[in-house]
Amino acid sequence: MNGAESLVRTMVDGGVDVCFTNPGTSEMHFVAALDKVEGMRCVLCLFEGVATGAADGYARMADRPGSTLLHLGPGLANGLANLHNARRAMSPVVNIVGEHATYHRKHDAPLTSDIEALARPMSHWVRTATEAGSVGQDGADAIAAASRAPGQIATLILPADTAWNEGGSRGRIAAIEPRPPVSRAAIDASLRALRSGEPTLLLLTGVALRAHGLSLAARIAEKTGARIMAQYSNGRIERGAGRVSVERVPYPVDQAVKVLQDFRRMILVGAKAPVAFFAYPGKPSLLAHPDCRIETLATADEDIIGALEWLADEVGAPKSLAAPQAKRPDLPADGPIVAEAIAATLGALMPEDAIICDESVTTGRGFFPLTRGAAPHDWLQLTGGSIGLGMPLATGAAVACPERKVINLEGDGSGMYTLQALWTQAREQLDVLTIVWSNRSYAILKGELMNVGAENPGRKALDMLSLGNPDLDWVSMARGMGVPGQRVDSMAGFIKAFRAGLAAHGPYLIEAVL
Amino acid sequence: MNGAESLVRTMVDGGVDVCFTNPGTSEMHFVAALDKVEGMRCVLCLFEGVATGAADGYARMADRPGSTLLHLGPGLANGLANLHNARRAMSPVVNIVGEHATYHRKHDAPLTSDIEALARPMSHWVRTATEAGSVGQDGADAIAAASRAPGQIATLILPADTAWNEGGSRGRIAAIEPRPPVSRAAIDASLRALRSGEPTLLLLTGVALRAHGLSLAARIAEKTGARIMAQYSNGRIERGAGRVSVERVPYPVDQAVKVLQDFRRMILVGAKAPVAFFAYPGKPSLLAHPDCRIETLATADEDIIGALEWLADEVGAPKSLAAPQAKRPDLPADGPIVAEAIAATLGALMPEDAIICDESVTTGRGFFPLTRGAAPHDWLQLTGGSIGLGMPLATGAAVACPERKVINLEGDGSGMYTLQALWTQAREQLDVLTIVWSNRSYAILKGELMNVGAENPGRKALDMLSLGNPDLDWVSMARGMGVPGQRVDSMAGFIKAFRAGLAAHGPYLIEAVL
Repeated sequence: MNGAESLVRTMVDGGVDVCFTNPGTSEMHFVAALDKVEGMRCVLCLFEGVATGAADGYARMADRPGSTLLHLGPGLANGLANLHNARRAMSPVVNIVGEHATYHRKHDAPLTSDIEALARPMSHWVRTATEAGSVGQDGADAIAAASRAPGQIATLILPADTAWNEGGSRGRIAAIEPRPPVSRAAIDASLRALRSGEPTLLLLTGVALRAHGLSLAARIAEKTGARIMAQYSNGRIERGAGRVSVERVPYPVDQAVKVLQDFRRMILVGAKAPVAFFAYPGKPSLLAHPDCRIETLATADEDIIGALEWLADEVGAPKSLAAPQAKRPDLPADGPIVAEAIAATLGALMPEDAIICDESVTTGRGFFPLTRGAAPHDWLQLTGGSIGLGMPLATGAAVACPERKVINLEGDGSGMYTLQALWTQAREQLDVLTIVWSNRSYAILKGELMNVGAENPGRKALDMLSLGNPDLDWVSMARGMGVPGQRVDSMAGFIKAFRAGLAAHGPYLIEAVL
Repeated sequence: MNGAESLVRTMVDGGVDVCFTNPGTSEMHFVAALDKVEGMRCVLCLFEGVATGAADGYARMADRPGSTLLHLGPGLANGLANLHNARRAMSPVVNIVGEHATYHRKHDAPLTSDIEALARPMSHWVRTATEAGSVGQDGADAIAAASRAPGQIATLILPADTAWNEGGSRGRIAAIEPRPPVSRAAIDASLRALRSGEPTLLLLTGVALRAHGLSLAARIAEKTGARIMAQYSNGRIERGAGRVSVERVPYPVDQAVKVLQDFRRMILVGAKAPVAFFAYPGKPSLLAHPDCRIETLATADEDIIGALEWLADEVGAPKSLAAPQAKRPDLPADGPIVAEAIAATLGALMPEDAIICDESVTTGRGFFPLTRGAAPHDWLQLTGGSIGLGMPLATGAAVACPERKVINLEGDGSGMYTLQALWTQAREQLDVLTIVWSNRSYAILKGELMNVGAENPGRKALDMLSLGNPDLDWVSMARGMGVPGQRVDSMAGFIKAFRAGLAAHGPYLIEAVL
């Protein structure tokens, strides 16, 4: 078999059997191999940022690597922003990036660029294949690298001749190394903080935000009087009725400082010490109180769940928890579409096991409290701050979980980055309900312009933050890609459309004009 | 004044007074400075690949640097593919990339990445500003670097505090260095080739493809019996009635080898020795005959026009040329929409001084012969092979030349990459007529799948090359971004729609179903 076939077989062997693709000439042998190998599902994306974001969404929900097939340096470049987000989400992703044949590179043909240099800033592992005979093992090594806790970005560059030459053989995939346990010293330091008598916060992310991790953290908190909180952006939170509810550190610096100001001890559980998303003149970069002592229970790659179990034992935490049950909110009355009423609608109507892909940016900051009592669901966030993730993320999550409803809460500004994802949702008939919050602006930036001290902005500045003139018509754009939908401008209309979208089997889009 | 204002003032001083932007928080001071400084026109783009491609189109038509304002590493990453194309077009571009404040970087906030590493593969010049006092000079140095012949990509990274701190001052912009003259030895080598009696080709690109350069090359050819040809992809060709017509080296390797097989001498005029776009099993990378001796008259950065003038003198070329005038083609009869009939329509109806932005990919390969006799126009190509340039390129060209009609010939696959450009065309009311060749596939790849030897492709492979299921509705997508248009599926319909698009003042889109 040729190198391409050995790579596809190795990927299937390694459980990497979904690939989000946008291939070109140099990847044609990989494409041709798809029909020779059983078990690989390829999902065509019309832009590479869709492919990488979908691989992230797939990985977050499947708990195994998502993969992509990309076309040389520029194809990889188009996917880098969502690889940045995937890296911040600690998602395992394997990228296969086609390259000119090894002997062709030196001629500097028009599509030539330094692919390794482009890959490195967003990848934990980069390798260029050298011959067909070792491509299978290169693929196996990429899968192992991606699978390394907490989840890594592995990029394998595949020169065309290493794909088309014969002599390929399946790679041997190393067993996934278990997460290393935390040290006794880390447990002791956390115990000292919990027993200090000072206000103490357990700051969580990663697997600590799955239901079991949250339950452990809440039991520790119940016993010790500590509080729990999630960092601002997280790859996946399991929440809703019957689960422990957790608030997040707020995005605005002033609010974050205020929420954290009383804590004098902080225990990091997979998280890093909280940092402002951006710097602002005269505001701090570090959000914890200057007198707060910060301990690390577990780093992102360590055995976070084991550490929480150990700590729960040490403090004598209760074996179970009567989690205070938030009640499912009532549906709001009719009126203009505002954030609180949207949140209540989501909380009231969200079906069991829904997957929320949240790129609401400004509109969605207040969605958490009113959705605590919703049916159990997963909440996936924009982790790296690079907008244009939501629609691809929802696409990948829906491929990973075909039995679950995916609800994509999307800003109009961020949605425009990677709207091509809607076509893939239509082609694959994915069960994604997209809701675009149409405020016709980069609303976040209007606030940021003030925050950085740029007062009294003039017309030219405000023009750069406005999406009006002309208004985007999301229903028309979605229809153009095969996704039905409707526009609403009242809560009564929104609730009706939301019910219609939930009842649809397949993609549906609601443009909610704020 | 603060650093941001000093930078904007320096850019305006340096003639870099159009900026294609997609700003974020870290760029808010640059945005705020826009209202303090007269003379800077900012054009908002809803995706960074639109901004960089528009800067390229602007630069190609304005003959001075286009500029962009981008948001940190991921914003730059989204623009890299079209910077790759700009680099291959030898277009001068200045990128301003916002970055976290200098003191904030070490905290590794979510949007942090290695911006310099991302910039380098697609930039000739990269610098990170260090303080407000020198940002003006950094900007001046960026403009000088971009302006260096034949045109370079200069990327200035702007930490937020270097923008918001006071103490900025305008930079001093170095005079643009003239292109160095070619050597006597280069002239002599070219003369020996021309006098060898062997079949000789002058291979042109860059400024050699403007009207004056082409005329010089044609006069040399007329005197010496040499032939002239352009490389396959070129930033800009001046052509049409009254100008010298030049064919290009074909894209398919077999055709290119055939066209070049009889030449035993080749003189490079700004061009490089012709190379296959991709490698294919059993086909050559180098397209010239193995016995062809290749000489360089002028490299891309040398004084190409001066070299042609010198060579014309040396051979005693005629002072003027009775260029054989191709006639304007007749309009085709009705029938299905096919490439030859499209080309005839373009040739017959294209208005004087039109700017053609050609990303037709497969459909447009045969457009050149029938448009030779059209009214004088410029033809801009996809130079780096990274699809998704056409709509942004047309946007930038229209900003540079508001009095001229821009016609964007676009593939459906390539158009989907950066369709957000249509919104900018609507907002700025740019006079762009977009024609999408809707063949519902990555048609080029169907051929390439065969070319690389992957025969009898199966359903899964073909699915990766098809844009059907569902069909894209371009008219609906364009309407969603404020651009009117219509779909046509016959030549009579196309001709009528083309006339309507030409008559429109502002953007218009035709979806031509093939």
